[in-house]
This record gives sequence, C-alpha cells and structure tokens, in this order.
Amino acid sequence: MKISIENKEKAELLLKQLTLDEKIGMIHGDGLFRTKGVEGLGIPPLYMSDGPMGVRAEWKNDAWIPIGHSQDACSYLPSNSAIAATWNKELAYECGSVLGEEARGRGKDIILAPGINIKRSPLNGRNFEYMSEDPYLTAKQCVEVIKGIQEHDVAACVKHFAMNSQETERLWVDVEVEERALREIYLPAFRAAVDEGNSYSLMGAYNLIRGQHCCESKLLLNEILREEWGYEGLVVSDWGAVHKTKEAAESGLDVEMSVTSNFDEYFMAQSLKKAVEDGEISEELVDEKIRHVLWLMLELHMFDVDKKEGKTVKCERKRGCYNTPEHRGKALEAARESIILLKNEGNLLPLKKEKIDRLLLIGTNADRIHSNGGGSAEIKALYEITPYMGLSNQLGGNCEIKYIEGYFEEKKIQSEENWQESSLEADGGRKRTEGIESEAVLKKRKKLLEEAVKYAEEYEHVIFVGGLNHEYDVEGQDRSDMKLPYGQDEVMEAVLEANPNTVIVMIAGSPIEMSRWEKKAKAIVLGFYAGMEGGSALAEVLLGEVNPSGKLPESFPFTHEDCSAHKIGDFAKKDLLHYKEGIYVGYRYYEKNMLPVQYCFGHGLSYTEFSYGNMKACKKTDGPDWRIAVSCDVKNTGERKGKEIVQLYIKDKMNQVDKPVKELKGYEKIELEAGETGRVSFCLREEDFSYYDEKAKKFKMISGNYELILAASLTDERLRQEIELSFS
Amino acid sequence: MKISIENKEKAELLLKQLTLDEKIGMIHGDGLFRTKGVEGLGIPPLYMSDGPMGVRAEWKNDAWIPIGHSQDACSYLPSNSAIAATWNKELAYECGSVLGEEARGRGKDIILAPGINIKRSPLNGRNFEYMSEDPYLTAKQCVEVIKGIQEHDVAACVKHFAMNSQETERLWVDVEVEERALREIYLPAFRAAVDEGNSYSLMGAYNLIRGQHCCESKLLLNEILREEWGYEGLVVSDWGAVHKTKEAAESGLDVEMSVTSNFDEYFMAQSLKKAVEDGEISEELVDEKIRHVLWLMLELHMFDVDKKEGKTVKCERKRGCYNTPEHRGKALEAARESIILLKNEGNLLPLKKEKIDRLLLIGTNADRIHSNGGGSAEIKALYEITPYMGLSNQLGGNCEIKYIEGYFEEKKIQSEENWQESSLEADGGRKRTEGIESEAVLKKRKKLLEEAVKYAEEYEHVIFVGGLNHEYDVEGQDRSDMKLPYGQDEVMEAVLEANPNTVIVMIAGSPIEMSRWEKKAKAIVLGFYAGMEGGSALAEVLLGEVNPSGKLPESFPFTHEDCSAHKIGDFAKKDLLHYKEGIYVGYRYYEKNMLPVQYCFGHGLSYTEFSYGNMKACKKTDGPDWRIAVSCDVKNTGERKGKEIVQLYIKDKMNQVDKPVKELKGYEKIELEAGETGRVSFCLREEDFSYYDEKAKKFKMISGNYELILAASLTDERLRQEIELSFS
Repeated sequence: MKISIENKEKAELLLKQLTLDEKIGMIHGDGLFRTKGVEGLGIPPLYMSDGPMGVRAEWKNDAWIPIGHSQDACSYLPSNSAIAATWNKELAYECGSVLGEEARGRGKDIILAPGINIKRSPLNGRNFEYMSEDPYLTAKQCVEVIKGIQEHDVAACVKHFAMNSQETERLWVDVEVEERALREIYLPAFRAAVDEGNSYSLMGAYNLIRGQHCCESKLLLNEILREEWGYEGLVVSDWGAVHKTKEAAESGLDVEMSVTSNFDEYFMAQSLKKAVEDGEISEELVDEKIRHVLWLMLELHMFDVDKKEGKTVKCERKRGCYNTPEHRGKALEAARESIILLKNEGNLLPLKKEKIDRLLLIGTNADRIHSNGGGSAEIKALYEITPYMGLSNQLGGNCEIKYIEGYFEEKKIQSEENWQESSLEADGGRKRTEGIESEAVLKKRKKLLEEAVKYAEEYEHVIFVGGLNHEYDVEGQDRSDMKLPYGQDEVMEAVLEANPNTVIVMIAGSPIEMSRWEKKAKAIVLGFYAGMEGGSALAEVLLGEVNPSGKLPESFPFTHEDCSAHKIGDFAKKDLLHYKEGIYVGYRYYEKNMLPVQYCFGHGLSYTEFSYGNMKACKKTDGPDWRIAVSCDVKNTGERKGKEIVQLYIKDKMNQVDKPVKELKGYEKIELEAGETGRVSFCLREEDFSYYDEKAKKFKMISGNYELILAASLTDERLRQEIELSFS
Repeated sequence: MKISIENKEKAELLLKQLTLDEKIGMIHGDGLFRTKGVEGLGIPPLYMSDGPMGVRAEWKNDAWIPIGHSQDACSYLPSNSAIAATWNKELAYECGSVLGEEARGRGKDIILAPGINIKRSPLNGRNFEYMSEDPYLTAKQCVEVIKGIQEHDVAACVKHFAMNSQETERLWVDVEVEERALREIYLPAFRAAVDEGNSYSLMGAYNLIRGQHCCESKLLLNEILREEWGYEGLVVSDWGAVHKTKEAAESGLDVEMSVTSNFDEYFMAQSLKKAVEDGEISEELVDEKIRHVLWLMLELHMFDVDKKEGKTVKCERKRGCYNTPEHRGKALEAARESIILLKNEGNLLPLKKEKIDRLLLIGTNADRIHSNGGGSAEIKALYEITPYMGLSNQLGGNCEIKYIEGYFEEKKIQSEENWQESSLEADGGRKRTEGIESEAVLKKRKKLLEEAVKYAEEYEHVIFVGGLNHEYDVEGQDRSDMKLPYGQDEVMEAVLEANPNTVIVMIAGSPIEMSRWEKKAKAIVLGFYAGMEGGSALAEVLLGEVNPSGKLPESFPFTHEDCSAHKIGDFAKKDLLHYKEGIYVGYRYYEKNMLPVQYCFGHGLSYTEFSYGNMKACKKTDGPDWRIAVSCDVKNTGERKGKEIVQLYIKDKMNQVDKPVKELKGYEKIELEAGETGRVSFCLREEDFSYYDEKAKKFKMISGNYELILAASLTDERLRQEIELSFS
C-alpha cells in the first residue's frame, strides 16, 4: 500500500495537532471493536468487525454481550475454503465485494478478512477460514477478495501474520521455521495481499516466531513487512495478541486490540503513555503508528465528510448496503462453484429430479445451521438454506423426503458462552471434553444406525449428509485426528451396505478420513461451509441443475499421520514448535515422497468431461521483462455444459537444488457448452521459476530445463512442454 | 367450480370401490392437517396447511408440536389486508401464485387462504387476515389470489363462510342478519371466489347463522352454496367448527377438521359410520361428500401419478418450489404497493438519503418480527426484514442510526402455548389479561418517554415506528377499542412536541385511533403486515426510492364507537348477535350519515400528483348483454413517476330504494412517468347497478338516472357523468 504525497501531507498536518493522549487513544482498543477518535479534529474512531463469512453481529462496546437488535443480521458468504475451492478469481472478487459492501453498510472501516494462513495440517481448527495448503492459490484468490472488499471504502485486514497454522496453544506456541519455508510457503500470500491486493490493513498473529510474539516481532513487522516490502498500511494486533508495551511500540504494529474492557490497561494505552512521558520510548514511534492510522482513514475517504458545523457538506465515501437480493445471488453463485464432486462411479449423480418420488435423507448435517458457529467467524445470517431445505425447495411437492438423523451429535465441547475469554486462557486453548462415550450415547447411536439401515433398504434414493460442524471446525482448538465424529463412519458403512446407491455428501471445513467407506461409495460430494445459499447450491448439484466445478484447494490424505506436519514436524505442541518439514507442505510432500492420498490437490470431477490439446508455450521478450505465454485448447467432450479448471504446474528438470516435484503457478477456469472448444492462456514470469536461497538470502533462478505441465489435478497431468531458460 | 364429465365418471368408478370405512376416513381429519387416503385404490390423503401469509410450519400429525426441522421455513407474504391495500389485481395474483407454488412445494393439496370476511368492525382480531369492508374490492382481489394459488395444482380454501366477523365467542355467537345485508355485503366475495375464482375449496366458519352453526347450515351450505350457486367444490370445516353428526352430514359440508387428536371421535368419524349403519343417515349423503373430495383430487391432478408397482410412471402434477429469490421478489413488489401515505404536510417525505447522517428511530415496531404471531396465520419465515433493518441496509454506513424503544411492550395476553386449544374453549375465546398497569410498567414507560423526548430534541431526523402487533391483531380475540397499546399516544405526542418533523409510521392490521397526535404529525405512513420484505419496502418509501401507491381498503374512523357495528349493531356479544346496521357497513355508513372519519376509504397519497380529465361513459350493446364502458385520462402532474388508483363509484340518483350514497364498482391502477398522461377504462354491467330486493328474494335493478363517479378516494371525487338506464 503506497500513500499519495497529498495524503501524507494531510496526515502530517493532523498529526501536529494531536496531543499524546489523543494519539494513545487512536492506537488501542477503546471498545472491543473500535479505537478512539479525536472529535475536535474530526478524526472518527476506527470501527472493525469480524469476519470472513459476513459482518458479525454487534456487541456492546465493552462486553461480549450481543446487542440483540434485528439490524445486524447479514448475508452469509461461503467460507474462505469454499472460495478457494471455486478456483474462480472473479467469484473471489465478488465475494469480497459483497463482504466489503455489507461491512460498509454496517458502518465498518475494517473488516477482519480474509484469513490466508497456509493449511499446514488438516487438523487446524481454523482451516475452514483459510484457503489452501498452496501459497500460489492462496495468493491469487486472496488478492481478489481484498480488491473486492476495498472497492467499498472499507479496509480488508488480511490475517493472521504469520504462521498461525494451529490453534492449540496459539498464544504461546513459538514457531521455528527455516527461512526457505518461511519465504516460499508462509509469506508469499501475505506479500501478494499487500503488493497486488493493496490490503489497507493486516492482522498480526497470536503465536511467536523465533522467540518473539508476532505482534511484537521485529523480524516480521519491521524487517520483512515494513522494510523489505515497504508496507505503509495499518497493522492491527489479533485480539489479545500483544504482551509487552516496549516491544509492541518498537515493532511495526500500529493498533492493539484485545478481549477485555479495561481499555486503559492495554499494553499500548496508559503504560505506553507513561513510557513516552518517561522518555523510555520515543514519541516518534507513536507518531509513525498515527501516520498509518491517518493514512488508512484518508484512503477510505473518512475525512471527506465535513462536519464543521454539525452539517454534512460533502461525502464521497461509499455508504454500502447489506442484505440485498444481489448479495444473496453472489453468495449462491460462489456456493455453486465451491462444491466438489469427488467421486461418481457409474454416473450415479446427478439424480433425476423427475424420477424421484421418495427420497431418504440421512444425517444431521442435512438439517443443521452452521453460520452461528466457528468462533470469531460466526455471524447472524439473515437466513441459511440447509441441504434439507434446499432439496425440499427444489424437489417440491411430488417428492416425499424422509429425513432421519442417522447419528447423534453428542456435545463434545464446552458451551459457546465465554469462548472469547476461554480461548485466550493462559493454557492457550479451549478444552474439548473428549469424554468416554456414555452408555446412553452408544445406545442412542445404535438405535439411529438401525433406523438408518432399515430405511436405506426401503428407499431407492438415499443421500447421506454428514461431515463436521463448528464444534470441530472452530477457532481456539484443533482436531485430534481426521476421523469423523459421532460414529458416522459406522453409519455410512452400514447404510452403503444396505443401499449401495447411497450418495455421500460431506460438509466440512477441512479434510476427513474416509477409508472405512470411500471404496463402497459410488458418489461422494464435498461442500465446504458454503454460506446462506449453500443448501440450494448443493441441491442444484445433486439434482443436476448445476454441473459441479469445484476442485480441492488442499490434499485429502488418508489420515493426518500421512501429513508432513505430523510425520516430520511438530504440531499441537506447547512452547517451541519446529516446522521440520520445511517447504514440504501439502502436495509438495506427498508428491515428493510418492505417498498416496485419498484425493489429491486440485481434484474435482464434473458431469461432463474435458480433453486438453494443442499446448503452446513461448517466451516473449517484447517488453522490458520477458514472459512465457502458455496456452492450450480445452474441449468439452461430454453432453452437457460445464466448467473446467486448468492447472499449470512447473517442474524443475535439473535437480541442482532440492525442490518439490512440481509447483502450481497458474490456473484458469473456463465454461464450455457440450462439444465446445475453448482456449486458456497463462503468463509465467521470472519469479515463477524462483526458489529461496538461504545462503544468498534472496530468491534465485537457475538456468536450465523446466517442464510446464497442464493438468486437471495434481496427478491428472494432461499436457507437457519442456522449455529451456537462462537467467542472468 | 364445475367438474368435467370425464372427471365425474372417473370419480364414480372410484366411489363404487370404496367401503364405508374408507369413505368415512376420507371426510374427517386423520391428522391435524390431513384426511385419510385409500392406499389400495391409490387415493392419497388430502394435505392441508394454514395460511394466507405463507405455508405454516409442520406439526406432528397428532399434536400441536412443531416438528422443528429446517425445511419448513418459507416465504412470508404480505397479509391479505396489505394485498387489498395495493388495489393491484396483478400483485394479488402474484402473491397467490407464490403462496400456491410454495404450498405445492411443501406437498400441500389445500392452502387455507385467502381470508375474505368483511371487516364489519375495526376491532375484529383477524381483520389483518381479511381484505376490506367493501365486498367489491374484496371480491376482485380475492379472485386474483385464488387464481394465482390454483395455477399450481393446489386448492385455495376461501374462508370463513360466512360472517365470521368477530373473534369474541366465535364458536357460539349466533349471527342474525337481514337478507339484504347478507346478499349485498357478506356473500358477494364468496360468490366471486367460487364463480370467478373457481375456488376448489371453501372453509365453513365457526359461528352460527340464524341458529345453525355455519358448518352445519342448510341455508349457507345447501341452499345458497350448493343449490343457488351450483358449487361443486369441497367444503371443509374450520378446525373444531362441527358440533353435530347428523346436521353436518346433512349439510353441504364435506370434510370435518378439528384440533384434537382423537380422530375417531370426530363428529363425522365413527359416530357418522354408526348412524349410516343404523340407517339413520343415508350413505348417499356420504357419497356426495366423497364425490367432492374425489373431484377436487382430480382437478389437482392427484391421480396422475401412477404408482401401481411402486413406480412413478407419469406425473403431470406441478411440483412447486419454495424459498426462491423470485418469491422474495414478488413479496417485495407487493409490500411496496401496500404502503399507504396517509399524510405528508410540506412534503416532509421522502427523506433525502444523501442528507441524513444521523437518524433517530423510536418504537419497538421498528425492530420487531411479526411473522411468528397472529394465530393460525403465523409462519416460520425464512427471514423478515424489520423497518430498522430495512433502513439500516439502505442508509448504509455513512448514517448513524440510533434506535430506542420509546415504549414498553408489557405482555397483555396469555402465552402462545396451547393457544390452539384455548382459543376453542367453551367460553369461546382467549383471555387478554388486561391487567392494571403496574407501578413498574408505568415507571419504565416514563423512563422510555423521557429518553425518547431527549433524543428527539437532539436529532434532526426522527422516525417513530409504532402501531399494533400480533398480540392485538390476533386470532381468537378482538380488541376492546381502537386505541394504541403501550402508551404510544403519549410518547408520540411528546416526541412530536420535541421534534415536529418526526415521521410517524404505523404498522397495524386494523384501524387505530390517532386523535391525540394526528394533527401534530406532518407525515404519517401506514403499513399493514407486509411480509418478509416489509421493512425494505418501508425504507424505500421513506427514502423516496419507491413512490407510495397504496390506498386504504377500509375506513379509518376516529374511534370504533363511530362504526355502525358498534353504534347500531351488536358486537363482541355472546349468543344472539344482530347485525342491525344492515348494509351500512364501513364507508356506506359514514357517508350516508355524513359522519367524518380520520381517513376515508380509498385514501392514500403519493409523492407526485395526478389530475383526471376527459371522462367518457357510453353504453355498448353489441353483444347479448349490454355494458357501459367508462374511461378517463389521468395525468401525472408532479415531478416523479408514480402510480394512481382510480376508483369508480356508482350513485343512484333516484332515491326510490334506500341505498348507500355510492358504492365502489371498479378500480384500476396505472403507472405514469412525470408529466405522462394515460387512460384507464372500466366496464360496468347490469349487476353493478343492482340491489337485493328482500321481498322479491332476488337482485333487482331500477331504471333511471345514475351518476358514475371517478375518484381518488371516497371523498376525493374528480369526475362525474350521469347516465340514464332502463332495465327490463
């Protein structure tokens, strides 16, 4: 984010008029979601709100008590994982735009989104809020979300900077990571967010890195973010992520937010004031933070409202709006493309709407609301269409839908009340009451399983809708394994036995173990939390109104033990935690080690098929920098319209440096009518061939041969071309 | 409703195969909302659902316990009073169509709507579910609703036949009404519903008429409905409205429904079977009812599903759908046109969106959900936009909206639990715990009033949103007067004193007293319960995005004591209750007696103005029957687009028969750009000039002079033309 000279001059004029007290008020929470303004100078407070899936309900200024009026319901958007699963940049932009317009409509200046931490392990409780295991996919999708948000004079706040890839002990875990992994895996999306996305703000993470809390980290905030990247935007702490006054003041952090209402006791409040007055901390450090606050306000046109005489004279700032039919429409579009068809043996799907007069629907995720959970991502959705509702709406009155629970959602975690505080307890996380499954629970489960089997035998058409929910995909705690809760595996096994044509639908924000039933299932559909119209989109896909076009934005290993964070590195540990796997995160690890997975990165089927051909790759040197134009034809060889995501990977053929087998460096989504051929093109630049050289402390390219691979998924490579490159 | 010979033959074939047991099962409730089918013959049960504003949530089959799944949320449509206030036949059709499509989508065969009882008194608790005090307006709007519903292979069930114009003692009140009033006021809409609307079903009312319960009434069901009108549709009882086996069996009633789960003990269940077996009642009477059931099923294509071998072979029946964006769009369109601008001194409205940076919103109706109340009309709305939400959504982030309660909604009635049963208790109604207002309530009120005044002085822009709610507009009890509850009058007076530019918005389903503040208010907006997008529509009107175009479908007297039902007739009495006012109901009474009202029938302002001119009225005799074509120009003389409702009244100049001063016999709504002129046309026929002659026992016309009046409201007459007619 680069600020214009004009705005810098304006800020300097205001800065000169501020007292130390006023400055201090502007850089720490004076409410749970706002800073203090300076009324005399017309400087308003900064209003912030969670989060990625919609604008969170309003709290009292100084207590985690919902205000409880009607006006803070809002549109519920697909989660960031769902947005990533679309592989559609335009839809990412549209979702961002809806979020930004709603945030502005609700009077917010900063919306705490998107979440872009790399999915190092499938067990991270907040994975559903993040995009991918791959830095390129994350970077490209998040840039669009940010641009969309900021169209509406609202700042995105990309989070959590950085390496907040687990929830366990999140306040105290100290991440040790090699420089190359930091640079190649964990930072690229943040760099894209500030460079390409121009994110006006950024949130520091809870954890420590190399011995310092992220919100006080000289390495992250001063050296990398401010100095290397030249970032002039605002840095806000995660809520309660600051622990020391001096360190925070001296870091690139600007605003301290927290979870308690003793605002004066925040580290950057009275104790900072005193330290400045005592000469322990230079006021110039405070001024630099104020500049960042004022620059952001100027970028958002927050001063264009002239209120000199209590009258509005001019207002250029966009006003926003929310809960509009257009927003719901965008939520539906994104939801449609986020659904992934994992398996479809014998074209069991789509179901033929006209031929179904009775349908059995098993599983509580068919009838469950997800918008109200997940931690800070929770929202008060205007409405949420469940799968049961979506199927009922669309199948209509000539089809009798029998819904049964199938399994029992015994409570595993403490109540949602006070989770804000409890998630920040000294021991660093919420406790899941793992619990011995009681007799009563086991008995209930058995009864539900028997009922499910009985009906599955009776009904021709059966859909099982299971997966996770926000008691598992949740802020503040990680899962202990990838297994499905509530004994779902057993139910699915039995149901598939009783009716082999049962369609399996998994709603989840992160990978799940499938080994007990995956082979028995003919059709498997995966939906990340897909927002207010998620159930409509799912029904459209199941009934063939919409051709599925999502692909996995992360690998689905057989079990979390296959994942490098668990096999090689540390995970869910307290104190020092070493990312020993280095750059071998996600598919980079599985492919390098030829480790089979349940479903690979980039996998996703369609009701039609696509063939690839006529690949071209040529180097263009007409501008100051060279680039490589890559393109190919894609033909829809099936019988219905569909969308294909073409993935471009680069493979280094030289083996001079330890590298992943191949890495994603491009993707394009194309819609084709049955029989239609279209062409997709990509553009590769120098940096796409680079790796981080730890000795040289910079990204480097090696001259030699590279293979460019066009693929339908990581393992479904379709076209290849070798190219020789020489770098100076 | 006329049944084809083919369908009659089909029904006869089925009828012959039915046992008496099977027949009995088909003509009484075997669930709270269904009859029994005959599986062997492929005769399904009849599934019914409340009600006019949407398809009610699902209950257990045999208990008033909601099933509580997600799929029974639905679109919440404007109430019938709101639909009437649009005076827009097309929108009435569209609302009906949404209701029908949703009912079908939810698997219903009969939707218990529309409610068309004449609004004899403003105090009737169910007025919000009814349309008008005028039989013509009710007839024309309800015909369109019915047509819309039945487009979707769902039966409308027009209700409650007849004269269920009060809730007090509704089970036992025995209405005495002169034949002329019956024929001219209370029956015409029902006749139109069955003749023009072709309503496939009709619901008998709770009350008695001339000593017989409506659901057992030979007069209403046999003589008038079946014999005179030739109705071949289904007659369903209101829930618990049947009291005697023999009488019910011998009447034109077909299906007995009730509120208890001892289905075999219904009057038309085992006791009817026994009476037939004992020869006390002829089986032919039962057969006639079965015919009506089968005919309805055939009309709804319920037999087109061939399930001979458990397979669906063919299905012509429409399947419906619900919760679609299109349905919400229709709900919004209707809501927009239902809002009535009662007063707008000095063009206080519309508010200028760009100029408002602070807005004070007073009154709990700004922040209140109405969809979940009202009795059988309650629904589980997918969502409901409150006025607070609508204004917030549309004003957006540059405007700070301060919301305060203004008044305290102390509970006045017993809890909603078990209202179904309690509303049918022997004493005939629910009890409102009128209660002495406690010290605590008065203290709280005083505090809220003071707060309201304080803020009203401080804010330039103030909107008060008050009125009634479904603790007052509710099935099972009438209001005791037209006064606003919760001390609102006092608050409005004080707020208008503090800020004379306060905009008053009243949300109510029936007329309210305004005398304490009406003169002080510059702008008054009235909204009937306007459905899921009611708050959006209201905000659009207040902010000038939509030009209001609703007009009052009923008179707003100063107090209920001015109303003829109270001044002349009986109301809210037990046992015998005489409609002594005869035909002088609503405006017919006020105009005849030159009694001033607060706002007259047909009144409603616009943000633009319309002039009328160039009236033509000529008799055409080219067909077998003559007709009079009436037309006039309407010019939008203001500066913005708007819609005008032109009303055609007929005045009998001869004074040979006692008649109202004039009567509504036509209306047309026309949209005009600023400066645009359009022409509206009407067509009058012989019957529009008729009155009911009690001695001759038929409708008659008198030759002589009639005045045709084109008006913007009852009292705002614009053009007149006299015409001489001779009737043979």
